[in-house]
Amino acid sequence: MPSTKKDKNLEDLFLDGLKDIYYAEKKIAKALPKMARAAGSDEVSAAFDKHLGETEGQIDRLEKVFELLGKPARGKTCPAIDGILEEGSEIIEEYMGTSAIDAGLVAAAQAVEHYEIARYGTLCAWAEQLGMAKAVSLLKATLAEEEKTDEALSSLGQGGVNERAMLAAA
Amino acid sequence: MPSTKKDKNLEDLFLDGLKDIYYAEKKIAKALPKMARAAGSDEVSAAFDKHLGETEGQIDRLEKVFELLGKPARGKTCPAIDGILEEGSEIIEEYMGTSAIDAGLVAAAQAVEHYEIARYGTLCAWAEQLGMAKAVSLLKATLAEEEKTDEALSSLGQGGVNERAMLAAA
Repeated sequence: MPSTKKDKNLEDLFLDGLKDIYYAEKKIAKALPKMARAAGSDEVSAAFDKHLGETEGQIDRLEKVFELLGKPARGKTCPAIDGILEEGSEIIEEYMGTSAIDAGLVAAAQAVEHYEIARYGTLCAWAEQLGMAKAVSLLKATLAEEEKTDEALSSLGQGGVNERAMLAAA
Repeated sequence: MPSTKKDKNLEDLFLDGLKDIYYAEKKIAKALPKMARAAGSDEVSAAFDKHLGETEGQIDRLEKVFELLGKPARGKTCPAIDGILEEGSEIIEEYMGTSAIDAGLVAAAQAVEHYEIARYGTLCAWAEQLGMAKAVSLLKATLAEEEKTDEALSSLGQGGVNERAMLAAA
């Protein structure tokens, strides 16, 4: 009995992956201003504002990759980023106004960054396999930005934010 | 008007973070056998089986960290891992039996690994700040395993799995 299931290949995965991260980036762009407002210090707030600008550039790059594929730029619900951002909202709800809010927000942002690092890393490898040099170059530029942002967040945490979270609020 | 909101600090965050990853590890331990069964090759299936063994050791380490804190080992629903694993289930549903299943599973597993890398990285930094040397050592051991697993998955992807996903199924 022959199977009627259509075979799927790396191109299908690549397009699904693009849609997933396109949806994720748009949700992140909406979440960052809320995180900036919840921050307990100007330095953490400024880090989220800066990353919002980068996120908008990353959305533009994804639209260029869709164009290279000759496909419309369209997102696909990504339960992973929805869950990761939901945890960020929980941190805001439970810790806003306490000594630990900035440490919690930095941690929430690093979970977002690592999701993106995983997805862009995969998309780079798939684009290379598919021989899409221009897409590789666009996706690698974003991957490098995400890795730099993750490192900057680690430095923020270890450069005073975690220490401040040990003190009781006045 | 004085605020009645209790201040929270880094110890609260650390305990919440432990509960989050404890829940996550238990969900991952349940998901890995399903991923191993869905794999299209012995090599990918074996990678998931191997990581299941490691995950069980990581759960033991977390229980030791709870003990160091004098707290019962208890999980707390983690919407992030629920979402990430839901995407893994979608890959199985949409790609099982196709040429691209292994490439999709490797990508799904790397999203899981990166979530864990983010959380264990944060927990290590917090445990250091809290001066909990034994907890740092336990959490760092797990972090190193997760990073190694992520690298092994990248090698699997680039070592034939992504290439096989380009071929049409016979």
